[in-house]
Amino acid sequence: MPTALESAQHVLQTQPFSVLLAAQLTAFRADCVEIRVPITAQIKQQFGFVHGGVISYAADNALTFAGGYALGPSIVTSEFKINYVRPAKGETLIARAHVVYAGQSQAVCRCDVFAVADGNETLCAVAQGTIAAMRKTA
Amino acid sequence: MPTALESAQHVLQTQPFSVLLAAQLTAFRADCVEIRVPITAQIKQQFGFVHGGVISYAADNALTFAGGYALGPSIVTSEFKINYVRPAKGETLIARAHVVYAGQSQAVCRCDVFAVADGNETLCAVAQGTIAAMRKTA
Amino acid sequence: MPTALESAQHVLQTQPFSVLLAAQLTAFRADCVEIRVPITAQIKQQFGFVHGGVISYAADNALTFAGGYALGPSIVTSEFKINYVRPAKGETLIARAHVVYAGQSQAVCRCDVFAVADGNETLCAVAQGTIAAMRKTA
Amino acid sequence: MPTALESAQHVLQTQPFSVLLAAQLTAFRADCVEIRVPITAQIKQQFGFVHGGVISYAADNALTFAGGYALGPSIVTSEFKINYVRPAKGETLIARAHVVYAGQSQAVCRCDVFAVADGNETLCAVAQGTIAAMRKTA
Repeated sequence: MPTALESAQHVLQTQPFSVLLAAQLTAFRADCVEIRVPITAQIKQQFGFVHGGVISYAADNALTFAGGYALGPSIVTSEFKINYVRPAKGETLIARAHVVYAGQSQAVCRCDVFAVADGNETLCAVAQGTIAAMRKTA
Repeated sequence: MPTALESAQHVLQTQPFSVLLAAQLTAFRADCVEIRVPITAQIKQQFGFVHGGVISYAADNALTFAGGYALGPSIVTSEFKINYVRPAKGETLIARAHVVYAGQSQAVCRCDVFAVADGNETLCAVAQGTIAAMRKTA
Repeated sequence: MPTALESAQHVLQTQPFSVLLAAQLTAFRADCVEIRVPITAQIKQQFGFVHGGVISYAADNALTFAGGYALGPSIVTSEFKINYVRPAKGETLIARAHVVYAGQSQAVCRCDVFAVADGNETLCAVAQGTIAAMRKTA
Repeated sequence: MPTALESAQHVLQTQPFSVLLAAQLTAFRADCVEIRVPITAQIKQQFGFVHGGVISYAADNALTFAGGYALGPSIVTSEFKINYVRPAKGETLIARAHVVYAGQSQAVCRCDVFAVADGNETLCAVAQGTIAAMRKTA
């Protein structure tokens, strides 16, 4: 029987866009959901840094999986907000999210996004958002 | 001499991630900056809809170009917020942004993201964010 | 029988904090919910402008009533985001909100906040947020 | 000579709106800026809970003072986002903010808002926002 991490990794692998970016789910715990994206040439912007859209993808997806940890797999991301604080460069982008509140119908989560260069992590963005449980139709 | 639209299109083409997504800048005016992303299999999530990360990319980039219309090319996206309101499916994703306030140091912009299916546009997400002018170093 | 505007005005008058600020609901329509707050000395900050907390109150409440127009009175404000764009001064603060999406369980709304000085409106803040319908308990 | 806390407390007391709400600045450190608001009848909404506008005031102001700790007193709050997670009731509202990133021109801060009832703290809201240093004019 697969672990919770393995099940969540399987979900990520069924997202074609996550496969395109070679994203990996590397933690799936109550205190931390972690998604890693290798920094390749094709995910950059015109100045050589990781495109903000990739950083927001990583934050969005980590927030969603964190919400899914609390609410189960039938979820949808309602909204999130992100502040970019430093340009992202290096080998790997890491988004770490955790739940700050979970009720029956929604979870509110926070996420920090780091860039790893030469083994050192630098905070690049912080995010906060809402994951909603999908309502069952009668 | 290139038009403002052509110059902005050139900038978009120097973003490898925008090239990867085949994004096109289709309007660059004071009242509307428009970015279009063709909906292909590789930008979807596990349910067959466009991945939220692609929608946030489109919003982020449209907000940034709208800010750039007001502030010039030396800009950085500080932050944005996005609400997803409907799943995105169809042929094309369209993000339309405009400036609601521009000062010397920053512009605040709004963006609507639509999915076009069979020629009909459906609102999928709304966003709001801040684009900052980069300070000159002495 | 009271009109929808009158019923909504009655709700506002049952909010002690809105009474404290002498807030008035001056429109309650599908396209515009409007809340006005007189600018008195006691709602200012240290530089003589309206305190950001009052601007966020006005935005929060206008968003909530706009959501209530779409979803009915059993609602709760889930979240919102606000950008302050100019200091607010003059006689009256006006927050105008409208629904951009309404489903069964939530409405996403936008709001513009203006300050009126000598009869002229100046945009001071823009907001966007989510109003949720309260789930019935079995 | 006043301490940093005393100086910041003095600033808070020069905000008429903070005086109206009897807000107190109870910590002003690198790791925590804390603002307390007594929960009185006049700051409630129609269901007897603290009005969301007061919670957003507390978050806004705690974020601003946290930004001020990093950037100095010449600052302006650019934007913030707040998620309400539980109704606030009890004796005191506490907003605690800290800086997650500070550069020369802006600080990005996070804030948690708690309600204290019978000595127990309950998380009611989480916020994230940007405080900007005011640019010197030549």
